[in-house]
Amino acid sequence: MKGCPYGSHRVIEPAGFLPQAALRIDNSLDLYDNEILVDVTTLNVDSASFTQIREACEDDVTKISSMIMDIVRERGKLQNPVTGSGGMFIGKVSKIGKDLLRRDLEIGDTIASLVSLSLTPLNIERIVQVHLEKDQIDIEGKAVLFESGIYARLPSDIPPKMALAVLDVAGAPAQVDKLVKKGMNVAILGGGGKSGLLCCYAAMKKCRDSGKVVVVEYSVENAERIRKLGLAHEVIIADATKPLEVYEKITEFTQGDLCDVVINNVNVPGTEMGSILCAKDNGIVYFFSMATSFTRAALGAEGVGKDITMMIGNGYTKGHAEFALGILRESSEIRRLFQKLYI
Amino acid sequence: MKGCPYGSHRVIEPAGFLPQAALRIDNSLDLYDNEILVDVTTLNVDSASFTQIREACEDDVTKISSMIMDIVRERGKLQNPVTGSGGMFIGKVSKIGKDLLRRDLEIGDTIASLVSLSLTPLNIERIVQVHLEKDQIDIEGKAVLFESGIYARLPSDIPPKMALAVLDVAGAPAQVDKLVKKGMNVAILGGGGKSGLLCCYAAMKKCRDSGKVVVVEYSVENAERIRKLGLAHEVIIADATKPLEVYEKITEFTQGDLCDVVINNVNVPGTEMGSILCAKDNGIVYFFSMATSFTRAALGAEGVGKDITMMIGNGYTKGHAEFALGILRESSEIRRLFQKLYI
Ligand SMILES: NC(=O)c1ccc[n+]([C@@H]2O[C@H](COP(=O)([O-])OP(=O)(O)OC[C@H]3O[C@@H](n4cnc5c(N)ncnc54)[C@H](OP(=O)(O)O)[C@@H]3O)[C@@H](O)[C@H]2O)c1
Ligand SMILES: NC(=O)c1ccc[n+]([C@@H]2O[C@H](COP(=O)([O-])OP(=O)(O)OC[C@H]3O[C@@H](n4cnc5c(N)ncnc54)[C@H](OP(=O)(O)O)[C@@H]3O)[C@@H](O)[C@H]2O)c1
Repeated sequence: MKGCPYGSHRVIEPAGFLPQAALRIDNSLDLYDNEILVDVTTLNVDSASFTQIREACEDDVTKISSMIMDIVRERGKLQNPVTGSGGMFIGKVSKIGKDLLRRDLEIGDTIASLVSLSLTPLNIERIVQVHLEKDQIDIEGKAVLFESGIYARLPSDIPPKMALAVLDVAGAPAQVDKLVKKGMNVAILGGGGKSGLLCCYAAMKKCRDSGKVVVVEYSVENAERIRKLGLAHEVIIADATKPLEVYEKITEFTQGDLCDVVINNVNVPGTEMGSILCAKDNGIVYFFSMATSFTRAALGAEGVGKDITMMIGNGYTKGHAEFALGILRESSEIRRLFQKLYI
Repeated sequence: MKGCPYGSHRVIEPAGFLPQAALRIDNSLDLYDNEILVDVTTLNVDSASFTQIREACEDDVTKISSMIMDIVRERGKLQNPVTGSGGMFIGKVSKIGKDLLRRDLEIGDTIASLVSLSLTPLNIERIVQVHLEKDQIDIEGKAVLFESGIYARLPSDIPPKMALAVLDVAGAPAQVDKLVKKGMNVAILGGGGKSGLLCCYAAMKKCRDSGKVVVVEYSVENAERIRKLGLAHEVIIADATKPLEVYEKITEFTQGDLCDVVINNVNVPGTEMGSILCAKDNGIVYFFSMATSFTRAALGAEGVGKDITMMIGNGYTKGHAEFALGILRESSEIRRLFQKLYI
């Protein structure tokens, strides 16, 4: 019994939709030949979704647990009905459909899903523990991965929860590695956060000796951290929602040249214009932030007559998981920092 | 007296914003040295904005006129407070600031603005006529272009209102010309509309003899039009909001290869996934449609593990106006069609 590679065979309603857009999907454990069954141990709930749930439940763990159970019972997946977003999971492979046996994967392997929980068939038997501060929930349950569903085997040398934190934003540093070339000017907005730090590392790797990496960061604390770790040539403390402030400081630092590549990792809305102004003509702005508005970016660039390429941050690019985990292996300083912040 | 190239010197509130994001800008006629003053004759109101205004005023031309006057009086620009969007204008240059005298522009030249009215200082002395069916308003008034504000001189061989219709979507065909190379498979969703037709033409120019251009269009009528004009190798009649339907038909037509470049020109929401599935790995999806959702695109590609480049349709790219007008010069068939549809 072979299902659709994208999982449409499990969509209950509305028909013709794919699992992410569907209201309800079939989370039964009867496995199709091109699916993988996983015993899930931890859910890493998307930060926007978890914040909404915590607020709705007033941080009451019992209420949170039953809200989570209700969502999954109703939808067959953990997709927050308000934010639309999901998260990721960690678990052990328990069954592999016969069409996927050739894959480099074995029963018992611990994996992290790299596709969103908002499209993943999920069964929760029991909620074991809710970790309020880490957006994580330990559970007993099962999830299904479709043929197109990407995942990463967890390495033995990195603690699972540190790996989960890094894998959540793995698309960003891998894209930086693709886009940035030696000698370029690179601006990283929101460079002090989780994805930002990894992006800085990736950019400095290419441009430390020939090029300029500049971070725009809001908090003095985060800025200091980047300076100390030598993760940028310059750290500008500014509010990315104020385009002219950012533009003037970047102009000064680059002596009017502006930037070949601008990476936006800020987690608040209204930073499109600041990003656009920092880019050179023919430069690239890579919007990784989920708070990006499509229309603000499109009209914004036109409004100032900027001939730039604006990219929507695809969470996936080939080899992204290995690249991101590789940073933790290469840099003991970043590893220590992630240990402190995200474990 | 030199202003900010981006017009921030005219922002009244909130301070630190650029004109587009501002609530109110200074529309006084005292010209800065790096500004251009234009006698405006026609406003081409953005379709989303005009639809909203028409509904609010129940198509009563007097009410529409006073609503337009009110908006401009309050904001100093014609930015619809509900949709946030603007439009473009046509007018004659009446004054050029001394810093911009070197430009290839003379007093008396007729130009179309290529930046949005949502950021353009505007004064309306009198509304002459409201053209309900064409989203156009003839006025007597004045507008200011900033140093960064792009414009096109209207050609003498193309009627102004036809030029305006084409210039409104000029970014799209020019980008197609940049992205598409000989021998590629190209899909154009919503290829039967205004921007779509121009994109088809640009794609066929590259790929007529070596490559495949396929259009996905909703209406039988529009599909027939493209077939007759020979603007694609194949026209698929399908609903772009149904990703699997589109995917299956594109798979069949390309014999499983899928497309190197996918252009989205559909004017309704929910077509991100259909576009993503049609692209090859390492392919490009160019979202020109303003109905695109950033998050749906970002999470959608990740959700199906597609390593593709997704671009936000920048309304501007170098030479876009000349390129789009050039299509009307090259193709008498497209010119006739635009004459019929948009004049
Ligand atoms: N495209 C994808 O597939 C994908 C996947 C995962 C995450 N994301 C998105 O990526 C973004 C970043 O995620 P993250 O986990 O790295 O978040 P994060 O750790 O919270 O980092 C955000 C950073 O932005 C800084 N910042 C906030 N407001 C700012 C402002 N006004 N000016 C300058 N800097 C400001 C923050 O500084 P403070 O700490 O001082 O506030 C922080 O350093 C989020 O929007 C998230 O949704 C996208
Ligand atoms: N990025 C920018 O700077 C910029 C500038 C201008 C415009 N735009 C955007 O570009 C888009 C297209 O503009 P336009 O002037 O070309 O619009 P348009 O002439 O109305 O064309 C839209 C086309 O999409 C087709 N369509 C509608 N629903 C469809 C569906 N479900 N499946 C397949 N095709 C469908 C329409 O067919 P029917 O006629 O049968 O409905 C029509 O042929 C708009 O979203 C507009 O906002 C962007």
